[in-house]
Order: sequence, then structure tokens, then C-alpha cells
Amino acid sequence: MSERIAHSGLKNKVMTADEAAQFVNHGDRVGFSGFTGAAYPKALPTAIANRAREAHERGDEYAIDLLTGASTAPDCDGVLAEADALRFRMPYQSDPEMRKKINSGAMQYADIHLSHSGRQATSGVFADIDVAVVEVTRIDEDGNLVPSSGVGNNVEFLDQAKKIIIEVNSWQSLDLEGMADIYRVQPKTPIPITDTGDRIGTTYIDIDTDKVVAVVETDSPDRNSAFTPPSETSEKIAGYFLDFLEGEVAAGRLSYDKFCMQSGVGNVPNAVMAGLLDSKFENIKAYTEVIQDGMLDLIDAGKMSVASATSFSLSPDAAELMNQKADHYRKYIITRPLQVSNHPEVIRRLDLISSNGMIEADIYGNINSTNVTGTRIMNGIGGSGDFTRNALVSTFISPSIAKDGDISAIVPFASHIDHTEHDAMVIITEQGVADLRGLSPRERAPKVISVAHPDYRPLLEEYFEKAQTGKHIHTPHTLSEAFSFHQRFLDTGSMQK
Amino acid sequence: MSERIAHSGLKNKVMTADEAAQFVNHGDRVGFSGFTGAAYPKALPTAIANRAREAHERGDEYAIDLLTGASTAPDCDGVLAEADALRFRMPYQSDPEMRKKINSGAMQYADIHLSHSGRQATSGVFADIDVAVVEVTRIDEDGNLVPSSGVGNNVEFLDQAKKIIIEVNSWQSLDLEGMADIYRVQPKTPIPITDTGDRIGTTYIDIDTDKVVAVVETDSPDRNSAFTPPSETSEKIAGYFLDFLEGEVAAGRLSYDKFCMQSGVGNVPNAVMAGLLDSKFENIKAYTEVIQDGMLDLIDAGKMSVASATSFSLSPDAAELMNQKADHYRKYIITRPLQVSNHPEVIRRLDLISSNGMIEADIYGNINSTNVTGTRIMNGIGGSGDFTRNALVSTFISPSIAKDGDISAIVPFASHIDHTEHDAMVIITEQGVADLRGLSPRERAPKVISVAHPDYRPLLEEYFEKAQTGKHIHTPHTLSEAFSFHQRFLDTGSMQK
Repeated sequence: MSERIAHSGLKNKVMTADEAAQFVNHGDRVGFSGFTGAAYPKALPTAIANRAREAHERGDEYAIDLLTGASTAPDCDGVLAEADALRFRMPYQSDPEMRKKINSGAMQYADIHLSHSGRQATSGVFADIDVAVVEVTRIDEDGNLVPSSGVGNNVEFLDQAKKIIIEVNSWQSLDLEGMADIYRVQPKTPIPITDTGDRIGTTYIDIDTDKVVAVVETDSPDRNSAFTPPSETSEKIAGYFLDFLEGEVAAGRLSYDKFCMQSGVGNVPNAVMAGLLDSKFENIKAYTEVIQDGMLDLIDAGKMSVASATSFSLSPDAAELMNQKADHYRKYIITRPLQVSNHPEVIRRLDLISSNGMIEADIYGNINSTNVTGTRIMNGIGGSGDFTRNALVSTFISPSIAKDGDISAIVPFASHIDHTEHDAMVIITEQGVADLRGLSPRERAPKVISVAHPDYRPLLEEYFEKAQTGKHIHTPHTLSEAFSFHQRFLDTGSMQK
Repeated sequence: MSERIAHSGLKNKVMTADEAAQFVNHGDRVGFSGFTGAAYPKALPTAIANRAREAHERGDEYAIDLLTGASTAPDCDGVLAEADALRFRMPYQSDPEMRKKINSGAMQYADIHLSHSGRQATSGVFADIDVAVVEVTRIDEDGNLVPSSGVGNNVEFLDQAKKIIIEVNSWQSLDLEGMADIYRVQPKTPIPITDTGDRIGTTYIDIDTDKVVAVVETDSPDRNSAFTPPSETSEKIAGYFLDFLEGEVAAGRLSYDKFCMQSGVGNVPNAVMAGLLDSKFENIKAYTEVIQDGMLDLIDAGKMSVASATSFSLSPDAAELMNQKADHYRKYIITRPLQVSNHPEVIRRLDLISSNGMIEADIYGNINSTNVTGTRIMNGIGGSGDFTRNALVSTFISPSIAKDGDISAIVPFASHIDHTEHDAMVIITEQGVADLRGLSPRERAPKVISVAHPDYRPLLEEYFEKAQTGKHIHTPHTLSEAFSFHQRFLDTGSMQK
């Protein structure tokens, strides 16, 4: 048995995943660890999926409600969705199989602000949790859990759950111990973080060991997506983002020293971080959701002094590096409970600049982050609302077109709105920067249209001009044509005329 | 000269409003006190409007950019709009004349979260303020300003402005002194409010008296709108709201003791407060934007222990009562800077239940608070986003129909979105309560439709059913019919078929 289980009582609870899955029953509300493909349970999902399949073959019902930190992986969300093992899922997912099930109507999905998700699990909305299934790198002699590659909503799920199943994953480095900073948000008490790197809690999660019904040993990697080198478009967007930062410095609103960033996940953010490597910015700090490859590069280059997040989202190469050098990186990296990493209080206090991706923006700066043509969920809002609303400056970064130009990221009216005109401050595409701060809707539209792809600009200008001939033009619209881009895409496969 | 000006240097700056208006020049960015019809400057607006009219008659340009706390009054926003004296206005207004100018395209209006407005005035977006014009009840011997019936963004405007004009209004009670709690949000520092009634600052605003260019004496009432007795509809909505609170108590999520509320302004909120008078709730606290008649009644009845806000919004009778008994009410009432009253950090910490009005909600819980048929601004988002996002439970309360039934408050797709499906938790009309917490969009729709007016339910059900025959149904929509209610209203004057 693994020496990673130091608590004698919990050693006696070691069993196979199939045995442990017997504690997860039809109708249960289950909280999983897992955030952006890191730290999710590796064995229980397949075992639960098998139970579901067997039940369905017998003609019995079997479906659970699944809560996580955020997205997991094909061997977690994927296998459960394929087996029709889920009735309901919250608060964020990005799995192709699960997406199909949600969009076909086969399962329910509540797309919730991540900062709300843990709070709803303690304040009553989702408080009735039957089982928590949490991956750890080690259980100490007192039964405390040492988080693996992320924290997410683990604390809330472990506190609320009636039964606990622990997966001890020996693939995860033991040197991750010390990276996590576990703090429970206290009623009517300020969160005592005043700088990005502040540690305010413990390196482990204390639990009620009497609730543990099973411990399962695993040795499986996180879902680490291969790193794609930045495209020409990503590099252009990153260039404009850096130009924007330089402009903020020139205007006296930002300093080259100790700039604090939040960054969404993906190709463009990694290009931004590559750009920061060669920039004048020093002692960069990240107060963000996930640790990405680009942050490790910035740390290695001595450009980033601290990165605070709730989880990793690394390429296989970077994950390998982390597993070898966790004792080094934990000097620079803190993983916090999602309730802390995404808390409005701390985000606002740190005066950070946020950058997140989007599906589309409308000409007045309303942002769709989630539903293609208003109906088809892609992933979810995640923490983009937490950071956008509370950042000192919120930016959205995206290529101006998708699908070889058949989709424009700038549209007359966003077909779903996740961030309103009151929240989005700056929109950046490979066409340039639209700084919308302090502007009325009619002042914003030409700026937003200027960062649309040239193929779409005339159509957008035409819409905006016609809309201004309407009777009321605080927010000029011709409602009968507001979704014309989307309708054309649905009818012809392209938003272009 | 009024003995309300105790500082000798500032006594020497007393002049007429017309003289003072000479310091306000074309192109200036001007910050006014004023919030929901209270504490706005009473003399300078007319004097500035006169300057504008004279300039326009001469063929000269004259227009300023005006920043306030929130809405003011006909003798402030109204006269300035009528005189075409404004190029730009932020962050909230509710004046009929100004609304016309904005909707006709004659002026620009940036509708901003109130919690963002003061921050943008200090962080650079609006930092370049030429003149601050602030009403006070008294200037003390050191030149400190004692706020009158509200605080709003006064601190930020006074700190940032190059020139200061003070209006000393002898209509305001001197006994208001002691009610305000002036605190500047400090960089990287928690706001030390841990309970609704905490006082953390001074009772006055300290200023750089060298920046004061004029002091003007006035004796004018705030804009106090007459109180309309609750309608049958308002009382029904209030009844359902109280039922909802009782349900929260029954579910163990709320206590009869020390319930903390935020409340929007108007007839329905006052009906809710009347309902609370006869409820089992005791030691009620309000952490909100404005003090309303209903709160004075709750205080008088011994049901409300403390009310924290940034300003008053009282009927003439209640304003008269306040002027007589401010020394009494200041034991229960605190007026704070808007940056504190609406700060995400404090709102979230206090676990309050928010309730705000709306123009319309769509069947998935997206809320339009601002733009009728997507184009015509009514007032603005105000602080509804600050409270909705950070409340423990956010509610929207509204009659299900308007204009004698020609407008439905429940529509297939909101024609403007100020609060997203991720934010609105509960919708209450005179038809009942739709509790949307923890539900997917498809689960939410029947609940929202159930609180629509019976005349509109079949149309909404028809829309929802058809939308579910689409290809992707996470958020079922038929985009070509999404605005059918609004289009019918524009074409025929009614959303009804």
C-alpha cells in the first residue's frame, strides 16, 4: 500500500474504485474535485459510469447530480456523460461528450459564476451533498488531505458531504505539499489577503475522518492538453494587448513594476504571456484561476514574482516539469480554494487587469462567453464574470473571426449575454484595441466596429447607421435585424452576405 | 451671512450662484453631489443652464460633462438638459427631460455600475475633474464639509477636482451632522465593516480648502416625491416576497432575527417594508443605497435596528419628519460614500437579500433594468448590479404587466440585458415566486412563465415549446421570434396578439 496514506484509520478504508462506487447511489448529489483538467478523480468516474451502465441495462434508473470546481477531463466528465450517468451538472464543463448531451437536452447544466458555486454549496442551494470525491497527493498522519494539482471547491464539498471518498494519486508530486493555502471564508470577516502572494491558511484540508467511506489509490496523469505554438493571429492580439498596457503606463494608470494580471486559458493568453517575457514589465503578479505554461516561463525568466490560482492547466511537458520541480515552483505559486481565488473582495482589492476570451461581442460591448447562436453551450462562464466585474480594467481578447471567416466575433446584438455593457471595458482583436471606458453606447459602437474583421465592418456600419434612424437611440437597434448575422449563419452556414 | 459657514477663509468666498457659475466653463468635466433627488446642488444647475442658454444665443458652444452620485431633480438634471448644457452624463439619471435628450441622441449617457463610478473617478477614467459642486449642511471651522441628505461620490469628486464650489443649504437640518460616515477606500486594505451598523470614518469630508473658488448659500428642499399608497398589485407582490422570506426561514437559510436587506426604490419596495412591519422579523438591518419612508416606519416601530445607505429618497412628509427629528434618526441611520455603500466586498460579507425592480425578465432569467424595447433608456442600472451580484439571494420584483396589459414583464428574450442568467436568483410578481436557484435554463423557463400574467402565459409556453424543437437546446431559442413580443409592441402598441 502506498506510503502516501499516513493515517492508520484511513489505511483501513483502502479499496478498489468499483467497491468505492457502491457508495454513490442513484439520485445522489456528488461533489468532485477537479478544475480545468487538473486534480479531478481518476478512478471513481469510470466506476460510477459502469454502475450507471449496468443499472440501465437492467432497466433501472441511475443518474447523479455532479458538482465540481470547473471542467475535468474525458475520463471524468466524458465517461459519465457517455454513460448517461448524470442528471445535472454545475458549475462549468468543457467536455465534448458532455456538451453534446447538454445541447441535445439529455442532461441539465447550471452555468454558475465560480465565485457563487462554493457559496451556494455552503449557504443552502446545493448544501445537501451526499458524497464528496476528492483527489489528493497525500493523507497525513492526522488524516488531513494534501491537495494535488488544484483546490477548487474541495473544502466546501468535504465540509458539506455526508460521505467522503478520497483518491490518492501517486502520479502527483509529493512536493506539491506547501503550494496550497487552505482558508475558509468566515462570516462577517474580511479575507486577510492584501497582496497577491499572501498566505493566510494551512497547506492541507482538515476533514472529519469519520465521514470517509473509501480511499482509492490511483496513478494517473491530469488531462494536460498539448501546447500549440501561438498563431499569427494570437501574436497580433497579444501585441495589441501589450500596446494597451503600454498606453496605460503612459497615461499614468499602470506601473511597469508589480502589474497584477488575471488571464483566461488558451492560445491567446499564452501568446500574451510570451509577449510579457520581452516587455518592460517586471515583478509581474498573477491573481487568477489557473497556472498556465506561460506563467512558468515568466517565473523561470524572473519576470513573474508570484502566481496565485486555484489549479493548474498545463501542457504535458509543463506538467512533467512541475512534477520534477514542484519544490522550486511552490516558492512562487499558491493554489487557493476557488472561493478565495475568485472572491469579489480580493479581486477588487488587488486592482488587477483581467483578460478573458469570448464567443462574440456586440457593437455596444455586451459579451457572449457561453452560447453559440444563443442556444448551444460551449463551456460556461467560469470565473470570467468574477474577474471582469471586479477588475480595475476588464479586457476581452479574441480573434475577430472564426470558422474561416464564416463567423464574426463582432455582431449587432449578442445572441446570449454573460457580461453586460456595464462590465466590458476593453475589447481586443487582431484588428486592434477598442477602449470603451467612459463612453456612451453610441460612442462605443464605432470603436467596437473598428476591431471587427474588415469583411464584416460594412455590414456592422450599415446596421448601426440604420439603427440610428430609429425613434429612440440611446442604444440604437433595429430589433427585427438584431440577430441577422446569426440567422444568416443558421440559414447558410456563414454570417457573410 | 449664514452661521453655517464657520471657516473664515470660506466665508470670504460667498457669492451668488451666477457669479459661481463663471467658474464652470464649456468643455469642463463637472462632478455634482446628488443621489436619488437628495443632496444635489440647488442653485448652480440653473445658473449653469443660464450660462449655456446665453452662450447658445450668442452662437457659442457651451456644454459640460456631468458626473453625479445618481439621479438628481428637475431643478438640476432637468434644467441642464432643457438648456442643452450637457454633452455627457454619468452614472445614473431619472429625469424626464434628460431622458428625452438622451433618447433623441442630443446627449451621451454612460450607464455605469454605481460601485464602478467613484472608482473610475479616482483610477483614471474620469479622474480629470475640473469642478466639483457639492451641497452641504454646514462648513465647520476647519473647512470640513458636513454632508446634507446624502454622500454619493462627493469624496471622490472633491479629492479629484481642480476647483470646488460649495452650496450650503439651510433647508437641510443641522442635526444631520453625525449621520454620515466618511471613509476613503484604501489601496490593498480590507474595508473594516463587519456589521451593517459599523462606523469606520469621520462625520465630515476633509477637503483642500485652497481649491474652493466659491461658496453659495441656498434654502431649497430636496426633490421629495409624494408617497403613493401601495396598490393592490404592490401588496400582492409584497405578500409573495414575504412568503419567500418565510420559506427561507423554514429551509434554515434565514433567521427571523437580524435579517439584512437591500431594497430598490419605489412603490413595491415600500409595500414590502409595510409588510415587514407586521411580520415575525425583528432587528431588521438594511445595507442599501437609499433611506425610504418604509425604513423610517420600521425604525419607529422598533423593527429595524440600523439602516446604512448613501442617501435619502423620502416623501415630502417623511423629509419634514427627518428635518425635525434628524437627531433621533441618526442613531439608526448611517450615510456612507457610494464606494462603501455599494462595494462588492461589504455587500458580499453581509449576506444580504437584495430586491430590485426591472423592466422585463426573459424566460431564462436574464433581466432588463434599463432599456425599453432595447433602445429607449428609462433610468439606468444604478446599484442593482452591485447588490444583485453580491447578495446571498438576489430577487427582482415587478408587476407582471405594464401599460394596462400591453406590455408583459416576462418576454422570450430580454431586449437589453443588465443582469444575466448567472445573477438573477428569484423573480417575484403579483402572480407568484419563481425561485431559479440551482436550475438549468430549461428548468427555469416553466418557473418564470408561471409568474407571467395569465394573458401572456400561452404565448410564452408556445415560444418555449417551439424553441425546444431546435437543434441545440441548452438555452432553447428561435432567434427569428426571440423579439416577437417587442416587435408586436412596436408595430401595434401591444405585446398581445
